[in-house]
Amino acid sequence: MASSEGNKLWGGRFVGNTDPIMEKFNASIAYDQRMWEADIKGSKAYVKALQKAGLVTQNEMEQILTGLDKVFDEWSKGEFKIKPGDEDIHTANERRLKEFIGDPAGKLHTGRSRNDQVATDTRLWLRDAINTLKELALQLISTMVERAAVHAVALSRDVERLEDIRKHVNVMPLGSGAIAGNPFNIDRELLRQELKFDSISINSMDATGQRDFVAEFLFWASMCITHLSKMAEDLILYSTKEFSFITLTDAYSTGSSLMPQKKNADSLELIRSKAGRVFGRCAGFLMTLKGLPSTYNKDLQEDKEAMFDTYDTVHAVLQVTTGVISTLKVNQPAMEGALSPDMLATDLAYHLVRKGMPFREAHSCAGKAVYIAESKNIHLSQITVEDLQTVSPLFDKDVSSVWDYNRSVEQYSAPGGTARSSITAQIEHFRTWLQAQKQKP
Amino acid sequence: MASSEGNKLWGGRFVGNTDPIMEKFNASIAYDQRMWEADIKGSKAYVKALQKAGLVTQNEMEQILTGLDKVFDEWSKGEFKIKPGDEDIHTANERRLKEFIGDPAGKLHTGRSRNDQVATDTRLWLRDAINTLKELALQLISTMVERAAVHAVALSRDVERLEDIRKHVNVMPLGSGAIAGNPFNIDRELLRQELKFDSISINSMDATGQRDFVAEFLFWASMCITHLSKMAEDLILYSTKEFSFITLTDAYSTGSSLMPQKKNADSLELIRSKAGRVFGRCAGFLMTLKGLPSTYNKDLQEDKEAMFDTYDTVHAVLQVTTGVISTLKVNQPAMEGALSPDMLATDLAYHLVRKGMPFREAHSCAGKAVYIAESKNIHLSQITVEDLQTVSPLFDKDVSSVWDYNRSVEQYSAPGGTARSSITAQIEHFRTWLQAQKQKP
Amino acid sequence: MASSEGNKLWGGRFVGNTDPIMEKFNASIAYDQRMWEADIKGSKAYVKALQKAGLVTQNEMEQILTGLDKVFDEWSKGEFKIKPGDEDIHTANERRLKEFIGDPAGKLHTGRSRNDQVATDTRLWLRDAINTLKELALQLISTMVERAAVHAVALSRDVERLEDIRKHVNVMPLGSGAIAGNPFNIDRELLRQELKFDSISINSMDATGQRDFVAEFLFWASMCITHLSKMAEDLILYSTKEFSFITLTDAYSTGSSLMPQKKNADSLELIRSKAGRVFGRCAGFLMTLKGLPSTYNKDLQEDKEAMFDTYDTVHAVLQVTTGVISTLKVNQPAMEGALSPDMLATDLAYHLVRKGMPFREAHSCAGKAVYIAESKNIHLSQITVEDLQTVSPLFDKDVSSVWDYNRSVEQYSAPGGTARSSITAQIEHFRTWLQAQKQKP
Amino acid sequence: MASSEGNKLWGGRFVGNTDPIMEKFNASIAYDQRMWEADIKGSKAYVKALQKAGLVTQNEMEQILTGLDKVFDEWSKGEFKIKPGDEDIHTANERRLKEFIGDPAGKLHTGRSRNDQVATDTRLWLRDAINTLKELALQLISTMVERAAVHAVALSRDVERLEDIRKHVNVMPLGSGAIAGNPFNIDRELLRQELKFDSISINSMDATGQRDFVAEFLFWASMCITHLSKMAEDLILYSTKEFSFITLTDAYSTGSSLMPQKKNADSLELIRSKAGRVFGRCAGFLMTLKGLPSTYNKDLQEDKEAMFDTYDTVHAVLQVTTGVISTLKVNQPAMEGALSPDMLATDLAYHLVRKGMPFREAHSCAGKAVYIAESKNIHLSQITVEDLQTVSPLFDKDVSSVWDYNRSVEQYSAPGGTARSSITAQIEHFRTWLQAQKQKP
Repeated sequence: MASSEGNKLWGGRFVGNTDPIMEKFNASIAYDQRMWEADIKGSKAYVKALQKAGLVTQNEMEQILTGLDKVFDEWSKGEFKIKPGDEDIHTANERRLKEFIGDPAGKLHTGRSRNDQVATDTRLWLRDAINTLKELALQLISTMVERAAVHAVALSRDVERLEDIRKHVNVMPLGSGAIAGNPFNIDRELLRQELKFDSISINSMDATGQRDFVAEFLFWASMCITHLSKMAEDLILYSTKEFSFITLTDAYSTGSSLMPQKKNADSLELIRSKAGRVFGRCAGFLMTLKGLPSTYNKDLQEDKEAMFDTYDTVHAVLQVTTGVISTLKVNQPAMEGALSPDMLATDLAYHLVRKGMPFREAHSCAGKAVYIAESKNIHLSQITVEDLQTVSPLFDKDVSSVWDYNRSVEQYSAPGGTARSSITAQIEHFRTWLQAQKQKP
Repeated sequence: MASSEGNKLWGGRFVGNTDPIMEKFNASIAYDQRMWEADIKGSKAYVKALQKAGLVTQNEMEQILTGLDKVFDEWSKGEFKIKPGDEDIHTANERRLKEFIGDPAGKLHTGRSRNDQVATDTRLWLRDAINTLKELALQLISTMVERAAVHAVALSRDVERLEDIRKHVNVMPLGSGAIAGNPFNIDRELLRQELKFDSISINSMDATGQRDFVAEFLFWASMCITHLSKMAEDLILYSTKEFSFITLTDAYSTGSSLMPQKKNADSLELIRSKAGRVFGRCAGFLMTLKGLPSTYNKDLQEDKEAMFDTYDTVHAVLQVTTGVISTLKVNQPAMEGALSPDMLATDLAYHLVRKGMPFREAHSCAGKAVYIAESKNIHLSQITVEDLQTVSPLFDKDVSSVWDYNRSVEQYSAPGGTARSSITAQIEHFRTWLQAQKQKP
Repeated sequence: MASSEGNKLWGGRFVGNTDPIMEKFNASIAYDQRMWEADIKGSKAYVKALQKAGLVTQNEMEQILTGLDKVFDEWSKGEFKIKPGDEDIHTANERRLKEFIGDPAGKLHTGRSRNDQVATDTRLWLRDAINTLKELALQLISTMVERAAVHAVALSRDVERLEDIRKHVNVMPLGSGAIAGNPFNIDRELLRQELKFDSISINSMDATGQRDFVAEFLFWASMCITHLSKMAEDLILYSTKEFSFITLTDAYSTGSSLMPQKKNADSLELIRSKAGRVFGRCAGFLMTLKGLPSTYNKDLQEDKEAMFDTYDTVHAVLQVTTGVISTLKVNQPAMEGALSPDMLATDLAYHLVRKGMPFREAHSCAGKAVYIAESKNIHLSQITVEDLQTVSPLFDKDVSSVWDYNRSVEQYSAPGGTARSSITAQIEHFRTWLQAQKQKP
Repeated sequence: MASSEGNKLWGGRFVGNTDPIMEKFNASIAYDQRMWEADIKGSKAYVKALQKAGLVTQNEMEQILTGLDKVFDEWSKGEFKIKPGDEDIHTANERRLKEFIGDPAGKLHTGRSRNDQVATDTRLWLRDAINTLKELALQLISTMVERAAVHAVALSRDVERLEDIRKHVNVMPLGSGAIAGNPFNIDRELLRQELKFDSISINSMDATGQRDFVAEFLFWASMCITHLSKMAEDLILYSTKEFSFITLTDAYSTGSSLMPQKKNADSLELIRSKAGRVFGRCAGFLMTLKGLPSTYNKDLQEDKEAMFDTYDTVHAVLQVTTGVISTLKVNQPAMEGALSPDMLATDLAYHLVRKGMPFREAHSCAGKAVYIAESKNIHLSQITVEDLQTVSPLFDKDVSSVWDYNRSVEQYSAPGGTARSSITAQIEHFRTWLQAQKQKP
């Protein structure tokens, strides 16, 4: 009995056997092994603090550090073998360390708990993940800016929010023990410096029992992909045969197994679909958190699969979107062909406003003009001045100046508008912003 | 170019290359290979219909059937090798079939589309999955009934709802093509019989573009695990040191890496946590469906990972719960120790009601008695008859009959109540119900 | 003290005062007054059972019934005045009853609890609500069928599911007390008949503590409106200037406060938006249920606002959709204008299949033809037979028969397909189905 | 016809009638009237910008300002009458303005659209709402800190996040028109200063079509109430008869209509339940946003009810929680009574660690001691030194020092721990933090 249980961390107490389904249900190694590097990094810092506190000797510390480097090497080379009993990455790494260096390995966990260890590992992992996603998002924004897409604005907000979340992630729980804190005068400031955290958690019960930073990340990702789902919707619409405003490159389309001529905008449909997937993870995790008692509950173990899946999804979506945007072909003639004089009805109203008519009245007059055009089945621009004058005597020959699409766009020159000057200013704004973002630590 | 693209179903048209990230993003083989058996079953039925329609010869049909059996064998033995270009299970199986039998394989897809194929495969897979889950749920209910747990009632409703969903799943889309239907007079009734579907889809556009049955299954699972999360919450509470109503067996507890005495009800916390996970899948999929245009969109590809993960989760949860329930120890003395006379305040009111006092007045009198007991810091049963008479003259020596917990429970003998007779009837009801369920097809 | 607390049901015990914010937070009268009719109906049945059990006299019963009729009249005429202390509809109705008939009113609650009362009222209310929604959905389906819309199929499934839910709703909790059942030998079968429930709840703890039927209804509504969100998306797309397949009538469009020519498909956008709203209610309520201990918890009070808001939303959406569909104008010429020969590429492949070529090869040949047409910037139908023969020698002059859109559609004559005969059969199917639905009880 | 339509902003064009259900479905006045003050504030700023741009005269501006003040007064006094045709607050206020001042009112909307107007109003309203919620949250934190609750930590993070959101809210969309910007050289910087926004939106299409700030607020509220749901769960547990760690004051308990002795922790159950409600709003709104095309869609109208309901819920929950926490009674003797020597098993292990044993070994030894105690059915502290020495020879008489709960807690003196000194430091930290928060603008 003792022997089969010997691999488990809780060691000498249990006399029952574990149901194998329960064992698999309970184990997290299948996914948390992904944090192997963060786990080793955390342990290396921790052993230094143990040595400073006099709980391991200099020699023991060195053995442990060397051993951990060997464990690191195995993971790096893909040679680490997970064994039965390695229920999580912490157990696996410590088990392997013990195989390398023997007894001193047993000192590493002094005053530490898996509760503060896993919270620390998760934060270290997510901190790196955020950096990667930020970089990919900046690449996408660069691409969008050069192609003048409105969606860059939303995405730049996402990058800024990601910075905020990074700060919330970068708080160190290590030294909080299982729940009550650390009893061996561990130097948490030393730990913080070693692990490059911005600050130290305030309260040990909160530090081990909260996953706000994961929930925030999941929601961030939901917002980000929701933004991209909107962009995808725009482009799907624009790529229909009826619009034909854009054409996707073959690299981001797929064919039909049945229809030889069909080129599906699969990349865009997949991007759109992922908003649901990611928000589902967020919704699920929030529901898991609801009504949990304080401090660590095993329920929190749901954080990691949600986080990894969300990261992988955003990671792929940002890259595929960059590919789609950078290679799509804009069909300018089709877009110009879609312009029609009735779009200038507001300009017609503004024409009257500029002649002194109150806007409400001008809006109504323009509405009447639209109605005349519809009744006569002609374009708005084809209404005669005489007919316009039945609507308002302010109309005159100079109304012809209204029927100019370029002039129409150019009037929107207030900051944020669609005049060429305004758009240029926005692009310039983003170039500067991107420069600034890239120079951040 | 042609050669590298030759493996893809859309064959001879595309001249661009696919972005490798896009390729992975687009491919579903990583998870839909799980439907290999359903896919082969569907193809075997389809080739029979093709033969009947004169689109393949008897000989070609036999070659294809034999080839499909070989593909089946490879999967069964774990020897099937997925190759680059096998973007989904349909492509993989057909590619392998072609390697086995050559050209006739190219006839299998006549008039069929991956759109009706995947919808059919998914339904076949889920139909089997539902049967398995039903069986596991019945096992759990049996266990609960023998241990007299209230939660059996909720779970029996879940089983009944699962039966309803099974009916919605068991409708055949095959023969709907990509969207428009099948142009070769395929005998859909023959297909239905071969694949043991209850009925045939009414409209080809709907049949290929809807995933109601997946959404329903995801919600069913959410409700089911929410029920179990409530049961888990009850048992977590009852297993606290303060309650000590129950003790989990070691097989369903785990220890702490830090606290040697700690026995965590991890099994129950994990069960509780899964309600969030599963509902997250449901929420995510509904969000993906929202606002999609009709007929097939690639967005629907999100259905399978949600379905598989949900199935696996429910599959494990039902079994672990059965283990927990069947092995937990009930501490009857602790439960009896938790009884206290103030719980009989309602009985005190009913005592007065039986003497003719309107309930509202009786409730108020009992409330006053409670207040007296609290003020004097004694048990409700310790108030003297004299003191009770200050509350109501109807009180007399016979009030002593009230202070009997057994008698209190036994009065709830109306159907559904908590009297022993009533509970026995409920258990009997479930035994009969279980018998009936097991005899269903 | 007693006087200010005297209006509350828990009567003579509390000595503290209630925080007014807490009082409002706790009260449900603001919304549950909507169930006034169900509440009175339930009480009328209950008093009959009390009389049969000998807990009220024939005379008292008659007083109570007469009093309840007076309360009913006040509500019907909009004259019922809610008073401070009426924290819920049950309290309000009983308070008013007492004002009408005095002391006997105090007997009505004997053996009953607000826990079984509210569960009963909610089920009675929802049962009626479901009937109304079913009727509106059938009207919409009728409209859709006459206008040949694919979305009728999804909606007909919704109606069938609603029938299932109705059955789950129609189970009587009354007689379950607060949690333990009824101690006065109340005849639950009499109650069931009076209230026209299909069956009686099995277990009192479950009956008072479960809201599965509300959750199911919320999910049903989510699915139903998600279906309509998809229909709305189709129609929004078809109503764009670029598609121009349909025109909404003015009654379901709105104008822009700025753009006189703009006619927004607001009705469709609002329909689409409601899928989120309704599913949010479902998600919220599931999250509320997660991890709740068994039997009644005040958390369950969240059921009603979710249920009412969902009902109101579906109620409006079904009617507005009926209006939109019945009045929209289909622009057949625009739809015909959108046809183009490349859509017939599959037909080209089928042409080769019919000449004996395996489908995969034929699909590839058709793909090559598409590529030739694109390269030469001509329509697929304009490729010469000579050029087609470079792709396959099977091509001949008879290929010209392929370029016929009508013939193309007519080939999909298998059940469920898009051939005229097939569509007619589907419409006939729905007419019969509608007839059958309307004849149900 | 014209007359009945005359009240609508789109004025002179529509010839059809609106379906009354559609009208109600479309109208937002029922809830957006809540933003009356923000709407007037925005219009007052806008007319100043119009005057500066030469679009209204000084005199017209003054008339409009005076008129708007009158409208303001009516709302303040509850005398504003909503009329048929007032489909939203913007229409209502402008309609009333026109009744007060006549024609010049028609100039107010020049170059403005309801799209930028509603976005501006919503941000102004939410900015104030955030300030209120922050204040209430700070009051709650103050209360928690004085009562040493761990939940203050989570809530302080919520306050900090609210500050971040406030920044995202405080960006001005006004001057973005319907989508394309403002064509009249409106001075957006003047508008910003008048309305005290921090900055100006970058892009008009984004500014009118995004509701990120609402989604962020909804998620913020979800996190905040999820935190409080966890606190509620703790307190519900602690207030059970079995725990009896705390007693709620009567002001935050309610009685049972059936059980006279029952005092329900309804306040806490209601707090717990609201996490679902609020997150449901967030989930619903995200689902509504998913896949929307860019720029304004009517779907966005769902933002306001979600925002208002969420605000009201958080507003009540924070206050009720403050009441509960400030009045609950802590039962110290019951808490002390719950201490038991087995809780000191970790201390037993640490005792060995301090004597030089590696932690893993010490943990195992302590586990064995626990097992001995369980086998002998005695307390851990009752094991004899001799028996302990069978586990490890390092045990000696000084082991008795371990059985001291105070000493046990006091060892957790590392920052964030549970030693008295550490807790005092945390309280001090919060006092300083609260001071700093209150001094912020």
